[in-house]
Amino acid sequence: MDKLPKCAANCTPLSPLTFLTRAGSVYADRTSVIYGRTHFTWRQTYERCCRLASSLQSLNIVKNDVVSVLAPNVPALYEMHFGVPMAGAVLNTINTRLDANNIATILRHSEAKVFFVDYQYIPVASEALRLLCEPVANASQPANIPLVIVIDDVDSPTGIRLGELEYEELVHGNRNYAPIIDQLFDEWDPITLNYTSGTTSAPKGVVYSHRGAYLSTVSLILQWEMGSEPVYLWSLPMFHCNGWTFTWGVAARGGTNVCIRNTCAPDMYRAIEEHKVTHMCCAPIVFNILLEGIRTPDQAINTNQSEFVLKSPVQILTGGAPPPAALVEKIEKLGFHVTHAYGLTEATGPALVCEWQAKWNQLPIHEQSKLKARQGVSVLSLAEIDVKDLETMVSVPRDGKCVGEIVLRGSSIMKGYFKDEEATNKAFKNGWFLTGDVGVIHPDGYLEIKDRSKDVIISGGENISSVEVETVLYRHPNVLEAAVVAMPHPFYGETPCAFITLSMRKSSPASASDQKTEGEIISFCRKNLPHYMAPRKVVFLEELPKTSTGKIQKFQLRALAKTYTPSSSSSSSVPPAAQSSKIQITRRRYVPDDNQPQLEQVLAMSRL
Amino acid sequence: MDKLPKCAANCTPLSPLTFLTRAGSVYADRTSVIYGRTHFTWRQTYERCCRLASSLQSLNIVKNDVVSVLAPNVPALYEMHFGVPMAGAVLNTINTRLDANNIATILRHSEAKVFFVDYQYIPVASEALRLLCEPVANASQPANIPLVIVIDDVDSPTGIRLGELEYEELVHGNRNYAPIIDQLFDEWDPITLNYTSGTTSAPKGVVYSHRGAYLSTVSLILQWEMGSEPVYLWSLPMFHCNGWTFTWGVAARGGTNVCIRNTCAPDMYRAIEEHKVTHMCCAPIVFNILLEGIRTPDQAINTNQSEFVLKSPVQILTGGAPPPAALVEKIEKLGFHVTHAYGLTEATGPALVCEWQAKWNQLPIHEQSKLKARQGVSVLSLAEIDVKDLETMVSVPRDGKCVGEIVLRGSSIMKGYFKDEEATNKAFKNGWFLTGDVGVIHPDGYLEIKDRSKDVIISGGENISSVEVETVLYRHPNVLEAAVVAMPHPFYGETPCAFITLSMRKSSPASASDQKTEGEIISFCRKNLPHYMAPRKVVFLEELPKTSTGKIQKFQLRALAKTYTPSSSSSSSVPPAAQSSKIQITRRRYVPDDNQPQLEQVLAMSRL
Repeated sequence: MDKLPKCAANCTPLSPLTFLTRAGSVYADRTSVIYGRTHFTWRQTYERCCRLASSLQSLNIVKNDVVSVLAPNVPALYEMHFGVPMAGAVLNTINTRLDANNIATILRHSEAKVFFVDYQYIPVASEALRLLCEPVANASQPANIPLVIVIDDVDSPTGIRLGELEYEELVHGNRNYAPIIDQLFDEWDPITLNYTSGTTSAPKGVVYSHRGAYLSTVSLILQWEMGSEPVYLWSLPMFHCNGWTFTWGVAARGGTNVCIRNTCAPDMYRAIEEHKVTHMCCAPIVFNILLEGIRTPDQAINTNQSEFVLKSPVQILTGGAPPPAALVEKIEKLGFHVTHAYGLTEATGPALVCEWQAKWNQLPIHEQSKLKARQGVSVLSLAEIDVKDLETMVSVPRDGKCVGEIVLRGSSIMKGYFKDEEATNKAFKNGWFLTGDVGVIHPDGYLEIKDRSKDVIISGGENISSVEVETVLYRHPNVLEAAVVAMPHPFYGETPCAFITLSMRKSSPASASDQKTEGEIISFCRKNLPHYMAPRKVVFLEELPKTSTGKIQKFQLRALAKTYTPSSSSSSSVPPAAQSSKIQITRRRYVPDDNQPQLEQVLAMSRL
Repeated sequence: MDKLPKCAANCTPLSPLTFLTRAGSVYADRTSVIYGRTHFTWRQTYERCCRLASSLQSLNIVKNDVVSVLAPNVPALYEMHFGVPMAGAVLNTINTRLDANNIATILRHSEAKVFFVDYQYIPVASEALRLLCEPVANASQPANIPLVIVIDDVDSPTGIRLGELEYEELVHGNRNYAPIIDQLFDEWDPITLNYTSGTTSAPKGVVYSHRGAYLSTVSLILQWEMGSEPVYLWSLPMFHCNGWTFTWGVAARGGTNVCIRNTCAPDMYRAIEEHKVTHMCCAPIVFNILLEGIRTPDQAINTNQSEFVLKSPVQILTGGAPPPAALVEKIEKLGFHVTHAYGLTEATGPALVCEWQAKWNQLPIHEQSKLKARQGVSVLSLAEIDVKDLETMVSVPRDGKCVGEIVLRGSSIMKGYFKDEEATNKAFKNGWFLTGDVGVIHPDGYLEIKDRSKDVIISGGENISSVEVETVLYRHPNVLEAAVVAMPHPFYGETPCAFITLSMRKSSPASASDQKTEGEIISFCRKNLPHYMAPRKVVFLEELPKTSTGKIQKFQLRALAKTYTPSSSSSSSVPPAAQSSKIQITRRRYVPDDNQPQLEQVLAMSRL
């Protein structure tokens, strides 16, 4: 049986590009992309991508060249997910929230040959290009300067340019597409290059293969049970793990992509109403935007109901951070149906999905939300997941209690970090990918994250999961966001310090300082947690520091927490109620920026 | 980027075996298999399969050894789909409807090392083993005699044995499973060996790879939108393309397998009612069993309704033959929801699925049934499908009219035919797999089969699709089954000849000869078809000859048709009504058997 040969008929390379070819054929007349008044069909999207690929080839883009793009969720960015790899090139989507310095670093590291820039991002892109031209210490040769192509707004052209070329001209310019797929590529070839947002370290360039992208896409559609003809709202940035594979997935299902330039509540609610959106992805932070958004006066579709509910349910896949159970409960009351996924850039986005079980429908809603906040079971593209003691590589017992590092293996794991052999080698151990996250496996096989390895607080020899403390904080009716980190403690070594933003709805900033005291929060935690796990310090901020992808930057908060010492009166022997009057509320606006000088400013402010 | 290495963490072999490992872990306590009063959980099924694999290894089964099995849809057959390849071996499921001679041929050709036999099939298996021991002309060496292991009924043990070993003893005997998967295999390794039923030629051994099986399984679950926790009724034999991949697919979804020994209406309706079946697969012929079955007196669940309807809808995936639109309409009225798929053994079962479009819901039910009878769009594991002129390999226009051969390529296509290089080479051409089926592509991208290449009737230079004539025949209220083949015609070369069985419901055998004349049927066809396409001969049989998998054996009917000549009075110039009284109705019981002597008997009978 080993003699039976592989041939082009029975062993074609796995690639998400086949999803577009197929959609262009079997879903030809269905709407593929909606953006403002602009609508495309799958036949058109297929042709536009072919023309883009052809134009890139005529610009001398060859196999494995990197094509970078800085754009919001506009049709051009969607099309590049197919058109760029169709030309054999590797798509590098750059986070639009980065500053010029970070963008220049990525352009330099990726050696991008082409740089597509949405017209709105010309100022920061120009500055990045200027920085790119500057000589860098230790660089053996000057940086390659990419060909710059502006993306004007396809729906409302502005005429703004940066250089000579514009995206639509490329799409309209070339009819003679010579496909590079099929004959010329191997499924292990790179398809995209995604730089991590760097919650814990410098950005690294994560490379996906065609095979990994195909398998991740298929598994995730399957796991989320995305049926036929979905209408998918682009609330999640496409630059985030290629939209958690749904850039390719919507093509696989012949669905409709609803593109929006800004992820604000009015635009999201309008799109949901107008295009009958069925699916969307977002980080839990967007739940807050949606919850606050229904109260804004300019929100077009408030249906005069005292209690706003969506006309038809919208499936939300959420991840990036564990969604607090209380927040899930709130958003579901509006008619959103939340599925919780866990993933990371290195695992092509979501790797675990909290698959719902029918029997859980019998449970009280509060219990359901708790189950829903668990990270769940592996998608089918992963061969195996486990929680291990990293020293011994022995699996922890499946008791929901013993913590260990979450490890993954399977075809949805990245090829590795681009030009970073050391980091690549460090990420893989004994045939496993190490996530750097700490978790438990429950007896029912569902995994639950307890923390990032670096976020575990070790207090008096006990491990405290910051996520567990945060979960309790989120249950407090006035807490909008919470982040818990270690602060130094003279006796215990470390102790939890909580950073909190308050809900606008329940408490206005003016009244907050009077009503919501640190003591009340600590007391609340002590009622709901073992005493040693309750924070000994609560700091109120107007905003929490976040990465460009919306993840809370705990390393910033850790730096801040180091400047505090726990009040001696907050020891466990003193009843929390007695402490409340003594403790001053710290309430500051956080200026989100990764730069050290600005961090210093915040630290200075916090010392005021 | 090419330097980034494949490793065990990021490039694991694709195999459906990972579905079982995963199910045993994340769906551990859910019911995996139900058979009578016997219930297993996924934890148990995983352990039983490991033990089976281990026992096979201790019986000296090594990589690529063939393990054959002759059994109905019992739990043992399900478990072998995992346990046998876990030991590195190749599973060969033998059609239980074959005779001893055919079984011996398969055992000889496959060189089976082990032969599992369900207790019910001991007589035919013993005879096959006897034949296997006989010397064969042209054989270079005596046939290998496999180790025989009987499968007793797990729910009601009979104690019947053939040889010393019994399946449950194997499963209970060995705790030390040394897994061969992962480290030891390549995804291109064989997983199963399925002999075609041979509608047109001698059986060939189709080999699937682990990769092909994995990808086919995932695509088919996705295309059928099989959600979580399905309850799957085994109405389709598992020996038929490994249950169209659902042997592996139910594990992938953590569903429940409802096994039944016989595919009879009472057992199917009882299982549907008792276990809340959500999904089942079957050939359209089973629709007739279900339709007739609701009228039988021993049917336990007739709910005293004048119009029987299922309590909750059951999804049916059907294929193997195009389901007549009228039949789809009838079965859907009972509460079954039909999805039509097209496939063949060489494409790991279903390769095209008639994906439903929401807008079709607006159409009249008759139009819907017609759309539903089309073969549809490719599953995602196929890279491409097309309809081509085989001479030029040029694609036909997508107009729903131009016919050509249906060709496929992608990872769900077989590795090839075992020990048959010539047939393998013939099946592949220019990077395509040739299905031997003739079809059209509609402007909306949906494919529709017109015929098997060999079944096209060429009459006066015009191609007549036998399926098209059959579709009209099925619309006649009294027609239960219809098959149309070519018969010789002195002027036109060939002309259609129809073989028909009548519906029991509408016409009893006694009255049929009086009421339903050949002329009436021909007249009906001429009203609904171009005249040249209407049959010039109609033969009434009590049963149509079928393969062991329920496909009508047109080659038998063609042989029969050759013995007829069209009545000269049935030329198009004579009004059909005028002919009816002249033509004698031929009504015979067909004895289904492939053997030439018996065919001769039938031919003799038909001349009576």
